[in-house]
Amino acid sequence: MALHQFAPTHYFTTIGSHTPVLRIADGDTVVTTTVDARGGDASNEQITERGNPMTGPFYVEGAEPGDTLVVKLEKLRPNRLHGWTGKMVAPNIVDPSYVRSLPWPTEEGKSLAIWEVDNDAGTVTLIEPADTKLGRFTLPLAPMVGCFGVAPARGEAISTATSAQHGGNMDYRGFVEGVTVYFPVLVEGALFHIGDGHAVQGDGEIVGTGVEISFDVQFTVHVQKGKQIYWPRGENADYIFTVGNARPLDQCVQHATTEMIRWLQSDYGLDAVGAHLLLGQTVEYDLGNVFDPAFTMVCKVPKRVLPKI
Amino acid sequence: MALHQFAPTHYFTTIGSHTPVLRIADGDTVVTTTVDARGGDASNEQITERGNPMTGPFYVEGAEPGDTLVVKLEKLRPNRLHGWTGKMVAPNIVDPSYVRSLPWPTEEGKSLAIWEVDNDAGTVTLIEPADTKLGRFTLPLAPMVGCFGVAPARGEAISTATSAQHGGNMDYRGFVEGVTVYFPVLVEGALFHIGDGHAVQGDGEIVGTGVEISFDVQFTVHVQKGKQIYWPRGENADYIFTVGNARPLDQCVQHATTEMIRWLQSDYGLDAVGAHLLLGQTVEYDLGNVFDPAFTMVCKVPKRVLPKI
Amino acid sequence: MALHQFAPTHYFTTIGSHTPVLRIADGDTVVTTTVDARGGDASNEQITERGNPMTGPFYVEGAEPGDTLVVKLEKLRPNRLHGWTGKMVAPNIVDPSYVRSLPWPTEEGKSLAIWEVDNDAGTVTLIEPADTKLGRFTLPLAPMVGCFGVAPARGEAISTATSAQHGGNMDYRGFVEGVTVYFPVLVEGALFHIGDGHAVQGDGEIVGTGVEISFDVQFTVHVQKGKQIYWPRGENADYIFTVGNARPLDQCVQHATTEMIRWLQSDYGLDAVGAHLLLGQTVEYDLGNVFDPAFTMVCKVPKRVLPKI
Amino acid sequence: MALHQFAPTHYFTTIGSHTPVLRIADGDTVVTTTVDARGGDASNEQITERGNPMTGPFYVEGAEPGDTLVVKLEKLRPNRLHGWTGKMVAPNIVDPSYVRSLPWPTEEGKSLAIWEVDNDAGTVTLIEPADTKLGRFTLPLAPMVGCFGVAPARGEAISTATSAQHGGNMDYRGFVEGVTVYFPVLVEGALFHIGDGHAVQGDGEIVGTGVEISFDVQFTVHVQKGKQIYWPRGENADYIFTVGNARPLDQCVQHATTEMIRWLQSDYGLDAVGAHLLLGQTVEYDLGNVFDPAFTMVCKVPKRVLPKI
Repeated sequence: MALHQFAPTHYFTTIGSHTPVLRIADGDTVVTTTVDARGGDASNEQITERGNPMTGPFYVEGAEPGDTLVVKLEKLRPNRLHGWTGKMVAPNIVDPSYVRSLPWPTEEGKSLAIWEVDNDAGTVTLIEPADTKLGRFTLPLAPMVGCFGVAPARGEAISTATSAQHGGNMDYRGFVEGVTVYFPVLVEGALFHIGDGHAVQGDGEIVGTGVEISFDVQFTVHVQKGKQIYWPRGENADYIFTVGNARPLDQCVQHATTEMIRWLQSDYGLDAVGAHLLLGQTVEYDLGNVFDPAFTMVCKVPKRVLPKI
Repeated sequence: MALHQFAPTHYFTTIGSHTPVLRIADGDTVVTTTVDARGGDASNEQITERGNPMTGPFYVEGAEPGDTLVVKLEKLRPNRLHGWTGKMVAPNIVDPSYVRSLPWPTEEGKSLAIWEVDNDAGTVTLIEPADTKLGRFTLPLAPMVGCFGVAPARGEAISTATSAQHGGNMDYRGFVEGVTVYFPVLVEGALFHIGDGHAVQGDGEIVGTGVEISFDVQFTVHVQKGKQIYWPRGENADYIFTVGNARPLDQCVQHATTEMIRWLQSDYGLDAVGAHLLLGQTVEYDLGNVFDPAFTMVCKVPKRVLPKI
Repeated sequence: MALHQFAPTHYFTTIGSHTPVLRIADGDTVVTTTVDARGGDASNEQITERGNPMTGPFYVEGAEPGDTLVVKLEKLRPNRLHGWTGKMVAPNIVDPSYVRSLPWPTEEGKSLAIWEVDNDAGTVTLIEPADTKLGRFTLPLAPMVGCFGVAPARGEAISTATSAQHGGNMDYRGFVEGVTVYFPVLVEGALFHIGDGHAVQGDGEIVGTGVEISFDVQFTVHVQKGKQIYWPRGENADYIFTVGNARPLDQCVQHATTEMIRWLQSDYGLDAVGAHLLLGQTVEYDLGNVFDPAFTMVCKVPKRVLPKI
Repeated sequence: MALHQFAPTHYFTTIGSHTPVLRIADGDTVVTTTVDARGGDASNEQITERGNPMTGPFYVEGAEPGDTLVVKLEKLRPNRLHGWTGKMVAPNIVDPSYVRSLPWPTEEGKSLAIWEVDNDAGTVTLIEPADTKLGRFTLPLAPMVGCFGVAPARGEAISTATSAQHGGNMDYRGFVEGVTVYFPVLVEGALFHIGDGHAVQGDGEIVGTGVEISFDVQFTVHVQKGKQIYWPRGENADYIFTVGNARPLDQCVQHATTEMIRWLQSDYGLDAVGAHLLLGQTVEYDLGNVFDPAFTMVCKVPKRVLPKI
């Protein structure tokens, strides 16, 4: 149960079987940092290429294919003052005939907005452009991690632009401090990667970004031996949830719901009919992202309706 | 501002330009009843054919194409003791390879579950099947209307199985008492239909039903002259929202988001860039249904972030 | 086996249970005309509202729900000199980010191209705009019917903009002279409608039109009593085929393939495994339309590989 | 313009920046072999792990990102007597409610069918199972390559189960001998991979396989310097075509059509309106696969309608 302070020196824009940057044991905690989606660090300098650079991978001893990696997100904290966002809803989010009416930026340099992030006040404030009707628009700080996961099987190295069964760029705003996430282990050591912090984000990441910013992060890992899952799962104070990553959203729903049915039957003692009846009248779905190459839908069941185990 | 007590004598399983059952004026209130999705009334007798039979249509004087019909849902109350649901998640909601593993009913008569609805206690309780691990599973009562809307243009009569710009079978659990709904008026008199009450429902209507039950309903209508909208909209204490009905869900997102962008700019004084920046970091999406021929996604913006007008 | 000369006096822009314009018997032949998609007749005058106006419906005596209506397309012939097309691929057919780059028309009146149709020469020639690099671009005449079908069940009246199990606006360029088409009978008398002729069309109807033109048509109907099908089917000299109408295209493939599996087993004496093995290595798919509210995919099996019956 | 005889000693189940097995020059020809989708070689022995193992990668000197790699498929020839196929249409190809009715294999070992491939006679004949109504069903031999392409950018290594802009597992039956294929070069040397031969295949690869078999292959490469394309393109005697790989099929259509519009304008001297008018009335689409994680649609324009350049 060691505590590792890890200062990254290089980053990856794929999630894959890269040489581990650190070996950690079941129960260990890692304190580290992540750069923003364009490679900007805590001093807002670009130190690596853009495209959701990942900190890691972390090799978790004892983790083997067929196990589950448990990652407790203990700290997700912006570590600088300014973040940035897109300024326009992505073309695929509106009716095709409306695409021409979008507020396309007229100059390249002006395609991003700048937001001020105040950890103490717990706020995120739009500061540029200053001339919209929104003015200095302020939102509550709600830091979340956009892209994280484990190495896929068979030597695949999957772009951090997208997501799949290994996790990846899910851009789900439910991945906040305090959440426990479960990943299927697909290679020896699991090879956990993390990055792409957002100070806040709307559902769907429809402008292609949250408020993109570098993070201080802390997480603790556990290995559930012989516990096989197929898609990322998670748990917070109020819900258990499963994550489906695919296109179209209909297929995300299929993946996430199938995974939840399995979970209810394997871990909550429900027979099949009971699981279906429960889901039918209590399930909730969140939209992760509808922007990346693979979209994300999340299937949630409130803990208050789950059978006590 | 008359109050009409209306007792239906016949029902329609399409939403279309049927002969109106009642003519009402802007500001009038209607108190009436709806049968359940299989035509069952308050005494649980089937009095009309199944398939979401509609009460109405109500002709609203003065409403013309290009106007908006405002419907305030003032009362949505189950009026009998028992409702019913499907027992199995629909095949299109799970991975195709998992369909065989669903708990297919072995006898026809056993395909439905029965739930007891207690208006006073505010509960919905599973009573049959009694032999699942759920036992007598109780949920909070949360009545909502599954199918309602206005006649489509050009003589179309659209099945109450599905939905489109006119509304219809959206099966969105946000359509509860207290919500104000806006429909585009597409024919003279708007021709408002309502039915398909659910005592409670999970997101997506994934077992193909909520707790299906007959309702006492009360609603008040208004006409916004010359106000053109393209998709149903709604408003509750905390949110404004727009509804997109289509397949796949990706297209629902497009319809609903486009409609919201229009709304923010026309009614909330936002310039285009401001509207996009606001949406990007604050939008929320709800899943209406992912079961009917057309699916439903809802695009929501919290009122607390809207500019004061 | 009467031959009916029918001159239409009015048209419908929905396919539904409208009052029949003519009652015909099993084996009868109808000779009639259709107007183009904007209601233009043989003299290129607009005589009815736009939106794929239908000639019909024709009531076929003896046809009842659960039967199949057989329609032999015997003549599909443009009956005037000029047709028209869209000039731009529809926004939903290109990448969302490319929509802005489409050649949007700058003036309303210029959104259509004009083509000259020469029945004798068997050619279709672009005449306006005259200033593209294509010049007077000539294609072989290949007349097909865009929209036809039978009334849907339960009083639905479905817009001729779209399609479903009853047929409708499939815009499949395989519906040419000589083809036999099968529709599920859904109401008494079947109520056959036909219209929306194209002098030629590319796959997908990607500019939103074929070369739209009025037609002289002749067809002969038969009723197959007690023969139940679920989606339109067809047959030409070389293929049997089934038609799926839905969104996205993936679902069209599901509908059409399922219908073909049924057909191979019920009519061609194939066991299930045989049907699947045959399909796997010989099936062909055509893209009907990818423009209308419902898209169309066609599943084809070459007659040369079918077991002799 | 060397001719390389290359005997592979190992294979990859991802397409990525692996160490090249051979360096070749612009204009060079390679004669080599591929194993079948389960790693079976010319003597039908499994010599490598299953999952579309690739021969290569071949490093093409001078090829850099921003160039186009031209691959002429000169020989694609089964090199053994027996191939195999799936026996059942995949669950995602039929209506979800029909999945239960599929002929699911009752024993694991019986999930494959065996076909005899006769190069001299030019036939493929079903030999096992022998007890279907098809009997010894014979088809014309039509060898095609299922999976081939170039290494993706930024260190990605993409599973040979799927496809994207780099090519990959497109399973399009138009990739036959004599076809010239164009790939966007995404890394230095292009790194061309090839494998997954099919003796014959239906559209869509709907049973999850063609007649899977090992191949003798010969191809010649060229580099088009400074010629940037975005998706695979191809050319045969009668057509030019572009390939879109994604889900759902609708998105494949978008990718392929957008690429074709670019091609018509850049290489065939067409103005935008001319390109759109041409496509609208002459385009054809083929269905590549509708089985793999990414589906494939092909957009074709007949050479006979192209402007002479």
